[in-house]
Amino acid sequence: MDNETTRFGHVGGPRMWAIAILAVTLVGAGVLRFGGQQAAGPGAPAAAPAAISAEKAALAALAPGDRPDGCIQPDRRIQLYAVELPKEGTQIRLGYGLTPETASYPGPLIEMIEGECLAITLHNQVPEATLAALRQDPNLPLGVSLHTHGVKYTPTSDGTIHTDSWVPPGGQRTYIWFAKPRNPSTGAQGTAGYWWYHDHMVGTSHGTRGLSSGLFGGLVVRRQGDVRPDRTYVTVFGDLQSINLRRGAATDTCDPVNPVPGPTCLIAKKGERVEFLVVGMGNDMHTFHLHGHSWADTRTGMLDGTNKALVDSVPVIDNKTLGPGDSFGVQVVAGDSVGAGNWMLHCHMQFHSDQGMATMLHVLNPDGTLAPHSADHAPVSAAGAPAAHAGHQGSGT
Amino acid sequence: MDNETTRFGHVGGPRMWAIAILAVTLVGAGVLRFGGQQAAGPGAPAAAPAAISAEKAALAALAPGDRPDGCIQPDRRIQLYAVELPKEGTQIRLGYGLTPETASYPGPLIEMIEGECLAITLHNQVPEATLAALRQDPNLPLGVSLHTHGVKYTPTSDGTIHTDSWVPPGGQRTYIWFAKPRNPSTGAQGTAGYWWYHDHMVGTSHGTRGLSSGLFGGLVVRRQGDVRPDRTYVTVFGDLQSINLRRGAATDTCDPVNPVPGPTCLIAKKGERVEFLVVGMGNDMHTFHLHGHSWADTRTGMLDGTNKALVDSVPVIDNKTLGPGDSFGVQVVAGDSVGAGNWMLHCHMQFHSDQGMATMLHVLNPDGTLAPHSADHAPVSAAGAPAAHAGHQGSGT
Amino acid sequence: MDNETTRFGHVGGPRMWAIAILAVTLVGAGVLRFGGQQAAGPGAPAAAPAAISAEKAALAALAPGDRPDGCIQPDRRIQLYAVELPKEGTQIRLGYGLTPETASYPGPLIEMIEGECLAITLHNQVPEATLAALRQDPNLPLGVSLHTHGVKYTPTSDGTIHTDSWVPPGGQRTYIWFAKPRNPSTGAQGTAGYWWYHDHMVGTSHGTRGLSSGLFGGLVVRRQGDVRPDRTYVTVFGDLQSINLRRGAATDTCDPVNPVPGPTCLIAKKGERVEFLVVGMGNDMHTFHLHGHSWADTRTGMLDGTNKALVDSVPVIDNKTLGPGDSFGVQVVAGDSVGAGNWMLHCHMQFHSDQGMATMLHVLNPDGTLAPHSADHAPVSAAGAPAAHAGHQGSGT
Repeated sequence: MDNETTRFGHVGGPRMWAIAILAVTLVGAGVLRFGGQQAAGPGAPAAAPAAISAEKAALAALAPGDRPDGCIQPDRRIQLYAVELPKEGTQIRLGYGLTPETASYPGPLIEMIEGECLAITLHNQVPEATLAALRQDPNLPLGVSLHTHGVKYTPTSDGTIHTDSWVPPGGQRTYIWFAKPRNPSTGAQGTAGYWWYHDHMVGTSHGTRGLSSGLFGGLVVRRQGDVRPDRTYVTVFGDLQSINLRRGAATDTCDPVNPVPGPTCLIAKKGERVEFLVVGMGNDMHTFHLHGHSWADTRTGMLDGTNKALVDSVPVIDNKTLGPGDSFGVQVVAGDSVGAGNWMLHCHMQFHSDQGMATMLHVLNPDGTLAPHSADHAPVSAAGAPAAHAGHQGSGT
Repeated sequence: MDNETTRFGHVGGPRMWAIAILAVTLVGAGVLRFGGQQAAGPGAPAAAPAAISAEKAALAALAPGDRPDGCIQPDRRIQLYAVELPKEGTQIRLGYGLTPETASYPGPLIEMIEGECLAITLHNQVPEATLAALRQDPNLPLGVSLHTHGVKYTPTSDGTIHTDSWVPPGGQRTYIWFAKPRNPSTGAQGTAGYWWYHDHMVGTSHGTRGLSSGLFGGLVVRRQGDVRPDRTYVTVFGDLQSINLRRGAATDTCDPVNPVPGPTCLIAKKGERVEFLVVGMGNDMHTFHLHGHSWADTRTGMLDGTNKALVDSVPVIDNKTLGPGDSFGVQVVAGDSVGAGNWMLHCHMQFHSDQGMATMLHVLNPDGTLAPHSADHAPVSAAGAPAAHAGHQGSGT
Repeated sequence: MDNETTRFGHVGGPRMWAIAILAVTLVGAGVLRFGGQQAAGPGAPAAAPAAISAEKAALAALAPGDRPDGCIQPDRRIQLYAVELPKEGTQIRLGYGLTPETASYPGPLIEMIEGECLAITLHNQVPEATLAALRQDPNLPLGVSLHTHGVKYTPTSDGTIHTDSWVPPGGQRTYIWFAKPRNPSTGAQGTAGYWWYHDHMVGTSHGTRGLSSGLFGGLVVRRQGDVRPDRTYVTVFGDLQSINLRRGAATDTCDPVNPVPGPTCLIAKKGERVEFLVVGMGNDMHTFHLHGHSWADTRTGMLDGTNKALVDSVPVIDNKTLGPGDSFGVQVVAGDSVGAGNWMLHCHMQFHSDQGMATMLHVLNPDGTLAPHSADHAPVSAAGAPAAHAGHQGSGT
């Protein structure tokens, strides 16, 4: 359910044709990506012209005073629910979901394309008592919000207390995001990038307890012509040595026989293009390191190979520092040159990785099975190391 | 008084014409930038030829053994005073100023253009007893110094103990900085960039107590052809969750009726080009985050839009990690696409922002007033949250 | 002995001619670099054709199942020894060496060129009792390994516990690394870069005690056409305010009369091209700062000067944040514009530099002597400041 991709639905105006094509493309990718799970939202199947007109009228009526420049009206709308999830031990867990039943942490991956304007109606279904239990600042009202990075929005979509753009328990509110495009004639940059969204209200006026409880998710803004990945995984590096709020064995729950991709099961077939959206969150610094794979330190992790001066000047790296609030994207070809296998993905701060801030990218064998040694590879948890390591190849040539 | 811009004054040689033009331009900008305040220094109004000759001779006589390669003689000279300022609580505060009366933290913004050679005569007016009170290393002599990043200087302008390039109480010393230009034929890089200068002597041989007391400021080196900002703000992210050594309400002292721009009042009209010079200082890591605005991760925060491969490879970001000693510059168009409003600028480390490491960029309404809610928006201080948040739009469509 | 450069030896196939040229070039540079010391490994002097054939056959037989795509067979082989070194106080010290007698921390600098495939046979000569004393995870077997960043390798060369690619005491194992080249036609990036290698087994399954004891070293992968430095220094920024595991006076052991270059004596003649390979290791964040010198934030610290849009967009910096696992390279021209002198190289986190995380780049006078004041410049150690600073130029013009 996690990382479910929302897509381009009913659109109007000059972008309609291009985005409709894109939606079809993405549905195909979505099936591949998430085990056949259907995407939520208005949906990709082409709607009849009459339905499109009705939807256009509905979109035009949304939050009329809340339009960043360049957004005449939203191109599509999604519903987003903030709910309480089962506790982890004594930790309260919250999540965003496209439906209340599918809420998760991280929340659904939201994909936009430059030029698109998106309306998101947030429904706050988190019980008031839960918000009160999380509140650290007694003067703060109880509510949740939606604050995003990277795209354009007016103050009324900021998700902050001082702009009054939050949602009390039981309420709802529509936020408008505009993925401002690059202007090729003036050179002004666009908003294509790897971003994230999160609460800015729970616990403190910066949403500190909303973040630590699970109210965050990834946002990818693509540019026309960008290479599409086969799979996208959001990895949020946070406090208490966590990846997506999990640590140790909980970071990797892949079934060795029938692994299902998701935020705690990172799998890919050799040759597939895997995209990581990496986010820093909380109070600590981290570094993102992946064994056997590297990437260019660019907007997408890739490089235009026809520009030698550019290619020669961009660093290629396999480890990147990120502070809270930072986010970046990396596209790698799974197992490229190095083959199938269980490739560690971890924070390279030694005490973080030793405490279990480590998982695996499983590059599958051609028959879909996990590579050898997957059964006993589990990252060291805080409680100890894997129990046994019988046999090794320590005396090879 | 803070962030007052020093400018290009009397110049000789082949650069004279270009820089004179620049000086006039900057004076115009300066009036706009700093509430009509006149810039200090030798000044922009064109001097008579005889006066220029006399000044040239004086400049040629300055610190004759202290010339980095490429600097035949200084193009201009400024006076810089290190003084003690009123305490903040029990904290000793020092500052650099173009005059003793205008000393501040951060010190005056110094602007250079590639090719320029600048002489700075530092006068140490900090009382010896104050320096003694700050001293942590009993073997260190008592003095202050001027150490800079980015531009070229010989060891005698290093500002360090081992080069004996510091100033005892009551003394003075001239430092020579050369903004080495880019060499277009060999490709050697220049020194255009966003830098900072600071003491390297107070407290320890690294100037640790000089920095924490206020002896630091911004330095911008521009390249011929660079786009000029309408306003520049220096934001130094430091220890104890501070921006420019302030925290909480002290970071934002804008008068809601008649706001005066300065290091604790960040304002701009919609459409103005605002430049932030961001510096990391002290012992802690931070991240610089601005709501509603983003920038290209380049030398200036902007991109040459005519080079598609380059534009497509550069990340656009709205949050950037910085460690102590790092500095970078960001130019954004205030309110672009997003409109007037009170846009948070904060460290995204959650406990830092929760402790008050947050201020606002106020993008003014067309009539010059602050946007609504400015009165009660104050960032949460360490002591608590804003007292009341009556009324919100929590149940909009 | 430290930082001894391994080089390209016997090679076959289409790369042979180019690499043979390179080997000769590097031998020349090596003599200059390391005080006349001869490089280890198969060696640069051209071997007779018959010897080449025999060596090719031997290389082809190495670790036959362990070939990343693109590596038909290794181009050369080096021997690497992990040994125990004398303690520093109570601290156990380990090191890698091309021979057991020359082991050091950092270990030998390994240089590759894109396209090359290298076999490294690791011999574990660390006593089992020492490994047991370092072990923090009681379930972990006792061994050392070789894990590298940046280049390509199969899981059996990963150096991790879950891939069983480690070496028990007294054992040996051959690892295969492939410096995958850039593909100019598809644009796929290569592996040219500044990397590092390290143990992944000692103490914990992430090699935490191997790293903190000394089992790490630098790896440079060059691209055809890259500018070669005159000298390379590896500076590993680590825990306890250390550079290459040293702090304070131990970071700079240059003899003032006859300085010998090495990891604790950073010297260069004015005008020489000096390359720093900077690595972050351990648990802490650091920043790398060098006085008087700056570099472009690119793959090599340099820029192609013929591409104005690119040159204008790349930041030039003199301070760079690095987290554990990060590595980057910087080429600067020693003393360029600024002259001979003792230029501080330090972490700009104030308490780190105050605790002795600081050394010097000594740019020598033309006669090979150290610049004045070198005798009393010693960075402040944890135990206190330099004892005396008689005389200064504190009242210059």
